[in-house]
Amino acid sequence: MTDSWATFQAEISAGISAGISAGISAGISAGAGSDLHLDLGGTSLRAGLRDALREAARTGRLAPGTRLPSSRTLAADLGMARNTVADAYAELVAEGWLTARQGSGTRVAERVDAAGPRKPRTPATPRRRARAAPAHSLLPGAPDLSTFPRTEWLKASRKALAAAPNEAFGYGDPRGRIELRTVLAEYLARARGVHADPERIVIRSGYVNALTFLAGALRRRTPAVKAVAVESYGLDHHRDCFTAAGLRIPPLEVDELGARTGELAGMSGVGAVLLTAAHQFPTGAALHPDRRAAAVDWARGTRALILEDDYDGEFRYDRQPVGALQGLDPDRVVYLGTASKALAPGLRLSWMVLPDELTGELSPHDNTSSALEQLTLAEFMASGAYDRHVRSMRLRYRRRRDELVAALAAGAPGVRISGIAAGLNAILELPPGTEQSVMRAAHWQGLAVQGLSEFRHPQLPGRGKDGLMVGYATPTDSAWAGALAALIRALP
Amino acid sequence: MTDSWATFQAEISAGISAGISAGISAGISAGAGSDLHLDLGGTSLRAGLRDALREAARTGRLAPGTRLPSSRTLAADLGMARNTVADAYAELVAEGWLTARQGSGTRVAERVDAAGPRKPRTPATPRRRARAAPAHSLLPGAPDLSTFPRTEWLKASRKALAAAPNEAFGYGDPRGRIELRTVLAEYLARARGVHADPERIVIRSGYVNALTFLAGALRRRTPAVKAVAVESYGLDHHRDCFTAAGLRIPPLEVDELGARTGELAGMSGVGAVLLTAAHQFPTGAALHPDRRAAAVDWARGTRALILEDDYDGEFRYDRQPVGALQGLDPDRVVYLGTASKALAPGLRLSWMVLPDELTGELSPHDNTSSALEQLTLAEFMASGAYDRHVRSMRLRYRRRRDELVAALAAGAPGVRISGIAAGLNAILELPPGTEQSVMRAAHWQGLAVQGLSEFRHPQLPGRGKDGLMVGYATPTDSAWAGALAALIRALP
Repeated sequence: MTDSWATFQAEISAGISAGISAGISAGISAGAGSDLHLDLGGTSLRAGLRDALREAARTGRLAPGTRLPSSRTLAADLGMARNTVADAYAELVAEGWLTARQGSGTRVAERVDAAGPRKPRTPATPRRRARAAPAHSLLPGAPDLSTFPRTEWLKASRKALAAAPNEAFGYGDPRGRIELRTVLAEYLARARGVHADPERIVIRSGYVNALTFLAGALRRRTPAVKAVAVESYGLDHHRDCFTAAGLRIPPLEVDELGARTGELAGMSGVGAVLLTAAHQFPTGAALHPDRRAAAVDWARGTRALILEDDYDGEFRYDRQPVGALQGLDPDRVVYLGTASKALAPGLRLSWMVLPDELTGELSPHDNTSSALEQLTLAEFMASGAYDRHVRSMRLRYRRRRDELVAALAAGAPGVRISGIAAGLNAILELPPGTEQSVMRAAHWQGLAVQGLSEFRHPQLPGRGKDGLMVGYATPTDSAWAGALAALIRALP
Repeated sequence: MTDSWATFQAEISAGISAGISAGISAGISAGAGSDLHLDLGGTSLRAGLRDALREAARTGRLAPGTRLPSSRTLAADLGMARNTVADAYAELVAEGWLTARQGSGTRVAERVDAAGPRKPRTPATPRRRARAAPAHSLLPGAPDLSTFPRTEWLKASRKALAAAPNEAFGYGDPRGRIELRTVLAEYLARARGVHADPERIVIRSGYVNALTFLAGALRRRTPAVKAVAVESYGLDHHRDCFTAAGLRIPPLEVDELGARTGELAGMSGVGAVLLTAAHQFPTGAALHPDRRAAAVDWARGTRALILEDDYDGEFRYDRQPVGALQGLDPDRVVYLGTASKALAPGLRLSWMVLPDELTGELSPHDNTSSALEQLTLAEFMASGAYDRHVRSMRLRYRRRRDELVAALAAGAPGVRISGIAAGLNAILELPPGTEQSVMRAAHWQGLAVQGLSEFRHPQLPGRGKDGLMVGYATPTDSAWAGALAALIRALP
């Protein structure tokens, strides 16, 4: 016996037994819930002893090479049955913490890390969490999260769960549940003019997930796509989906009529283009009819594909919705939609309508979304709750947009606002050279907001126009007035 | 006016009006659910006309270039308000179906596909769907789907939805909900001996999704991993996750003591190994303690990583569970678990416990799983329902396994069964050269089952041992006896 065992044993007789008792009490009070009580015959004691020994070996309290007492001796010392101790030893041998060799007894394995207790973990802090919470937020991208229709959703969930066939709990179709695809086909045709067939709809866990799939599919295409044109203003992490797949991302200029799709014909080696046709993100322009036509003509002429990001197609205020580009040519346009703006990003549900040539790219093992959540959304849409929710949100956001326009007219008359006919955000056009100082002023006001330059394609020279991107859907109702006031104070 | 317009107009006055009326009636009977009724002032008529015109243009019934009557004329003909027609025209112009030029009136756009009605869609038929449904199934991979605890799950769902903070509906932490990661850390430590810290747990939408992430992370590592050793028996679509990322997959032989990890040291350029340590898939062996140690020693000595696929670690019958390999060295082992075997694949929930070196690889925009489903699982586990469910399933599957053993002893005494101490499947060892004939016999019996050779690493010579892989958890209780009888009839 070495010293480290002697120290450990002194504690085990007292503390560990107490710990085991505590564990047993906890287990008993938790009722049938604790797995510790599955097996009869001292499993709890065994598990407690095993865990204590393992922790001691892991932290180095029992040094590598330490010889343990025989199971008979330890059992007598602890007042346990010999088998309980022998079983705990055997488990730890099986796990590699201990070694048992004929003639040399049971020892702490040499390979166990003896450097003492493990260093405290450095928590992984992804970028999104690193941002300190400001007092107000007008960051774009999310709807007012307090409006999620919990009661209606639970109702749909209950119905969906009761009606689900057993096979819904299996791996299922990689395209997603047919119930949801059927409802979506009807909805997309009605609300967005999409030529949708349930057979070609694919459910994914969010837009980035869909885009990542498409980037891979374009790379694998024959001939392989090498470059995807992207609008000169957009989101970094959308562009990253393509570059991560090894695709080039030449920029396509955006102006007040949307992306200049006429220029696609002059761009060499481009096999696809990503367009926010209904409401350019972030500038807010609707793609002009001539440019819609030019994009489709280009795609037809070169057998290229258009990826249509219809992220907020439901939200139109001052005009009738413009149907999706996809309706013009379902063979050349991939339609991309999401529940993130109309319902909540937390659902992680998005959908693609694929042209025939891409349907074969789907891996049979890559179904990404919970079947229950899909069935719930199908029920939610079929019951009319989705339409009602969108309508109610549309009124809410239109009111906010009107309040934003009025507040600007009163408090910052020099600032022009654009992109407001639709969507959940607006652009405030700032005098040249002032974006940075306005961003600093916003920071002082405790307002989180993004400058227009943050959306600019990294391969373009200069900083582009000065502006602020205002996500007016983001605050809750109670936070909205404060955020708006902070914005006005930050403006010149 | 061209001929195609004349024909169309004759129909529109009659049929389309009827269609619009039908649409209105349907909309009214659907109550507030239909989006068609959002706007006052003839939106339904406008939408009906628009859709009819669009469909006519799409199918070629209105040929490209066809000049449409003026909105005034058509309105008079149809008995509609002029604005209704003008609005419908304007929408279709915006969508690119029609063109409106000063002096030449409104025409069907030239680019619209005039090749007549679109060809019927070829439904995309992923491989999984292509398999014709047999009478019986003993395919491995899924639990008995009829046992999903719907009532308990709904209860947990209701609680989770009521308790969820608003931010749960947002994009959230790419690692997943902290509530679930906290409960998992406790569960994995208790049930599987995993050294888990919620900060290093990452929720993914299934095992393939997790493996795909890991393959990418290994490729991006410095120095980049070029090859991942995989067990000589395993699943194609798991190996594919690595090859799709450009990794080589040299095979590591498996015998009755599990993978021969001692051979890793002799394999050049291998930076990681994928192991099913607790229950080799498909052979069913538990990795021998010496081999566990050898794997960890190798990983430490070469700074390689072990990917531990603990897919069915909860299911042990005749022995105590063997703790996860990860506990031996959390810095060198990535632990991978899933809800697919203990609960249901349809939930699309899996988890990884990452070593520090991989936590930075997570994209902040790649959160894959529904927040509500994660909160529901957290509640389900914290309430003890998960433990209760696993315990009940363990009894059920153990009983089936015993019935399988008994049926074989009685009906096919020449067949040896192995891998039965744990998991949801067993291997029936067949006389050399008989696997194909037994597979044919199974097919005649209407029994879906997989031969052992289907799991063999494609780079290995020959066909390996003859055997059948029997997934005895797959049938429902009512289908189990029939499946078992079909199996016995198929055996020599």
